Amino acid sequence: MALLVQKFGGTSVGDIERIEAVAERVIKARQQGHQVVVVVSAMAGETNRLLGLAKQVDDVPNQRELDVLLSTGEQVTIALLAMALNKRGFRATSMTADQVTIRTDNAFNNASIIQVDTENLTSLLNAGHIVVVAGFQGRDSGNNITTLGRGGSDTTAVAIASALGADECQIFTDVDGVYTTDPRLVTAARRLSTIHFDDMTAMARFGAKVLQLQSVEYAQSHQVPLRVLSSFEDGDGTLVDFSVSQPCAAVGVAVMSQQLLVRVAAPFNEVAERLTLLGFEAWCYAEESDATLVVVANDDLARLKWGLSSPTVTVAGVSTLSLVGEHVHQLQGSLHAALAECGLTIYQQKQSARCLSILIDSADQQLAVDHLHKTFVVDAESLDNQTFLAVS
Amino acid sequence: MALLVQKFGGTSVGDIERIEAVAERVIKARQQGHQVVVVVSAMAGETNRLLGLAKQVDDVPNQRELDVLLSTGEQVTIALLAMALNKRGFRATSMTADQVTIRTDNAFNNASIIQVDTENLTSLLNAGHIVVVAGFQGRDSGNNITTLGRGGSDTTAVAIASALGADECQIFTDVDGVYTTDPRLVTAARRLSTIHFDDMTAMARFGAKVLQLQSVEYAQSHQVPLRVLSSFEDGDGTLVDFSVSQPCAAVGVAVMSQQLLVRVAAPFNEVAERLTLLGFEAWCYAEESDATLVVVANDDLARLKWGLSSPTVTVAGVSTLSLVGEHVHQLQGSLHAALAECGLTIYQQKQSARCLSILIDSADQQLAVDHLHKTFVVDAESLDNQTFLAVS
Repeated sequence: MALLVQKFGGTSVGDIERIEAVAERVIKARQQGHQVVVVVSAMAGETNRLLGLAKQVDDVPNQRELDVLLSTGEQVTIALLAMALNKRGFRATSMTADQVTIRTDNAFNNASIIQVDTENLTSLLNAGHIVVVAGFQGRDSGNNITTLGRGGSDTTAVAIASALGADECQIFTDVDGVYTTDPRLVTAARRLSTIHFDDMTAMARFGAKVLQLQSVEYAQSHQVPLRVLSSFEDGDGTLVDFSVSQPCAAVGVAVMSQQLLVRVAAPFNEVAERLTLLGFEAWCYAEESDATLVVVANDDLARLKWGLSSPTVTVAGVSTLSLVGEHVHQLQGSLHAALAECGLTIYQQKQSARCLSILIDSADQQLAVDHLHKTFVVDAESLDNQTFLAVS
Repeated sequence: MALLVQKFGGTSVGDIERIEAVAERVIKARQQGHQVVVVVSAMAGETNRLLGLAKQVDDVPNQRELDVLLSTGEQVTIALLAMALNKRGFRATSMTADQVTIRTDNAFNNASIIQVDTENLTSLLNAGHIVVVAGFQGRDSGNNITTLGRGGSDTTAVAIASALGADECQIFTDVDGVYTTDPRLVTAARRLSTIHFDDMTAMARFGAKVLQLQSVEYAQSHQVPLRVLSSFEDGDGTLVDFSVSQPCAAVGVAVMSQQLLVRVAAPFNEVAERLTLLGFEAWCYAEESDATLVVVANDDLARLKWGLSSPTVTVAGVSTLSLVGEHVHQLQGSLHAALAECGLTIYQQKQSARCLSILIDSADQQLAVDHLHKTFVVDAESLDNQTFLAVS
C-alpha cells in the first residue's frame, strides 16, 4: 500500500464528464490498496471567467479580493469530484486550504507555501477516505485567502506529498509524460521514462510547459518523486527523480517561442539593474558600450517599454533553443557545427546549469529544432554518451 | 453614528452594474458617518447554475459537498463588491463565514446559526473598514462548510446585527417595503411605514415573500429592528419592530396561491401524524371520520402522494387568504358577511396568532383579495380601530 498524491489540472476537470473520468482513475488507485489525496485545479476556463468579472469591476483589482474571488474556482471542483466519488460508493471528503491547513506568506496572487498541516489529512486518510484538496490556494498568518499564482496547483500537490511523506506525487496532464522536445513541433520527439530533477528544472526553465518550474524545484528540494501521467490514457508516464538520465548527448531540446530581441539605448549594467528592479527575468547582453540587447516574450514588450526610460527598437522575432543534459556544456563545438550545416545564424549563446542555450531568428526555429533534436537526441541514442562526446 | 447591517439579495447583485450600484449605496451610508457591515447573496442565477452542475454529477448530491459547492456563490459576490468599494477609495474587506466566524449546527443544506463571533468584525470596523460578509453560509463545530438553506442570507444579516448590537438591520430587496397585500395582485396595496414583528411573522408565514419567516423570527427573538428597503430607489421602506401597527382593522391581507385541496382516505389523526413525520407544514382538517382534507402547494403534491400510504383525490385548486393584525380575531363575523356579499364559498377557516385565514377556490382569489383589502384595510383606515370593530 502506497500513499499517493494525484494532481489533475484544469483541462482534466474541464467538464462533468471529465470529472467523472478523474473519479474513475482515482478509484483505480484506491482499489489497488493505495491511500489517495487528490489535488485539483479550477475547471478549464473558470479562472479566466472569474478574472473577467474582476476586470469589469476594476482594471487593477484589489489583490486580496482577487484571491478571494479566484479561490472559488478550485472549491467548485473539489465539491464536484467528491460528489462523483461518493456517488460511486467511495468515501471522499473535500478540503479547502483553510480546512487542511495550507499556510502561505501574504504575497497575494503569488504566494509561497510555508507549511502544510497533516493532522486533518491524516485522520481522514486513516478513516479510509479519499481526500480531495483545492489546489492553488492557501491562507496567510492573518487567515486571509491567498493564491499561489497560475499553475500553483502543482506546487500544492508537491507540498502535500512532502508534508505527508507520500511515495509519489503524480501530476496528471494532457500529455503522457515529459518529451525530449515539444511533440507538437517535432514528431520524432519521444517520451522519457525517467529524467533527473536537474534536467527537468532546466527543461522547465527554458520552455517545457509540462511541469511548472516552481513545483519541480519544490519537489527536488523536498525529495518528492514526481511522475507525469496522462489524464486520458493509461501508461507509466515519466518519473522525475534523482536517478541519472539516459546516457545521451542531450536529454532534450527545450524551446521558447514568441520572443522579441529588443535593442535598448543604454549601457548593459544600467539595463540589467533596471530589469531586476522590474522583476523581469529576461536574457540580456551588451551589444556596444551604450546599447544593450534584451530578449523578451512578445506579451511583455509593452511592460518592458513602460519600465525602461531609454529608447527601444525591436530588432527581430527570436526563439531560444536549449540543449539540456548533464554534459551539454561539452557540446558547444558540435552545436555550432550542426547549426552551420543548416546555414543558421546564432544571435547569442549562454550556458546555465545543465543547459546550453542559443538565440536564433524565429523564422529558423523549425529547421533548427528538428536538426538539433535529430543530432543530439535521436542519433546520439545509438552511441553512449562518452562515445558521442568523443565523436562530436 | 450608527452601526448598520445592510443585506443585498441575489437580484440586487445580479450583475457587475448592480454590484456597483450596491457599492454606491453602501458608500452613502458610510459617508453619513455610519459603520457598515454588508451581507450579500450569490449573484442571481449563480446558485441555480451550481445546483445544475451538482445534479449532472448526482441526482441526490452528497449533502456536505453540496454546501462546499453552493457557498462559492456568495464568496464571488463579496470579492467583487469589496473590489468595487476599494476602487472607489473606501477601505473594504470581504469575509467568508469561517473568517468571521459564523458557527452553525451540522444540518447540511439547512443549517441554523448558533453563534457569530464579533472579534474580527469589530476590529475591522474600528479600523474604518466596510466589512462585506458572505451570507447563507457557516461552519459547523468540525469546521465543515454549511449553508442555511435558500434565503438564508437574511438570517446571516440578522444574526450579525444581533451579535454586534447593530442599530438596524436593513434588508434591501426589489420592492420598497412591506405592503398591505401583494402589490402585483392589488394595485391599491400600499406600503406600511412600520409593522409589528408579530404581524410581520403572520404575513410571512401566510404568503408574503418580502421577508423570510426564519429571519423575522430570529430578529424578533434577538430584538433586532429590521428595515425593508428598495435596492433601486431611495425611500424609508418599512420598519419592522415592536411599535404598534397602525390602528386599522387589519394590517394587511396575506395571499398564498398555487395550492391544491386534496382528499386523503384516512382519519385525521393518522394523516396529521404522517404529515408531521414527513416534515410537511400543511393545513389539514377532518372531512368525515375516515377522510381528511389537506392543503398543499402545487409543487408538493408528488411528495405528498409519495409520503402517504392512503389513496388521494385532488378536490380543487385553492388559495389561502389571511387577514393579519392584532384584532383580526374579532373580525370573523364581518369577514363572512363581506365574502357572502361577493357570493364566495369558504372551504375552511382557521385562527392563528394575529391571523384569520380562509380557504377559497383559486378561481375566486382575485375577487376575494380585492374585496377583503378594500373592506378591512383601505376603508378601515378612515375609522380608528375601535370604531371599525364596533361598526363591523
